[in-house]
Amino acid sequence: MSYYRNYNSKDEILMDYMYQIILEYAQELDLSNIRTGFQTYEHILQSLKYLQKYKDYVLCLQKANRSEILLHGLDMYMLTVTDAKEKSFFEKCELYYYSGALYNIFLHWIRDGMNEDIEVVAQIIYDHVKHNRYDMTGIPLEIFPKEPQQ
Amino acid sequence: MSYYRNYNSKDEILMDYMYQIILEYAQELDLSNIRTGFQTYEHILQSLKYLQKYKDYVLCLQKANRSEILLHGLDMYMLTVTDAKEKSFFEKCELYYYSGALYNIFLHWIRDGMNEDIEVVAQIIYDHVKHNRYDMTGIPLEIFPKEPQQ
Repeated sequence: MSYYRNYNSKDEILMDYMYQIILEYAQELDLSNIRTGFQTYEHILQSLKYLQKYKDYVLCLQKANRSEILLHGLDMYMLTVTDAKEKSFFEKCELYYYSGALYNIFLHWIRDGMNEDIEVVAQIIYDHVKHNRYDMTGIPLEIFPKEPQQ
Repeated sequence: MSYYRNYNSKDEILMDYMYQIILEYAQELDLSNIRTGFQTYEHILQSLKYLQKYKDYVLCLQKANRSEILLHGLDMYMLTVTDAKEKSFFEKCELYYYSGALYNIFLHWIRDGMNEDIEVVAQIIYDHVKHNRYDMTGIPLEIFPKEPQQ
């Protein structure tokens, strides 16, 4: 995160941090297999483990009544990795369904103290999504900027 | 909603109103076929039409950064109608997945001005859920209180 950037509100800081989290995740992804790897069990587990690293930030968002910033981050990630930002509302709905579901399960899980195995949580999510995996045919590979946008 | 009840915070008022909305919906439901009717296309369409009546309240929640109250209401409805309040985290996850998905799609839809046909939105949701409908075998019929809880 740039320490020289000026912010106009606390919300901007929180949203920018969310953006950096999502960007970092995307940069760590093996994009060469994103077409076949999106919404696999391994990908879901990887994303839960990644989000878990930021649990304190997410709990802080919730305490400040700004959990929506996490949901916005997940939406943004889904739309970006599938190159769907300019698509119709109905096509985006396929992704909103998934990000809303992930968001709610993840929030309940960390709020309840993460007592359950992350692998089982990932499996539950995968069991839901496996019949409706998003069609990634034709998605270009160069979808994420390599540097944070200013 | 009782006009004589005392509230300790604005949040309590907003949450109580949400509770009344969900309770009214549950009382309008034909519970005699809830076991077979839960998560059908017709049920999804009915719930979207019902929520649409309260769009101003939902937009007001969002403006106040309290959209979470809607999500909490949907969670509560799902856990109640499936008699799952005392079940394990993993069983609840099945419902959190669904309520989080509904929540996100509904919020995007009303925020974007509800330009798309509600029937198509219901169909998209049903297409996701049809392979994973919650198993309602053994759910008792008398699950909702007939009067608001005080």
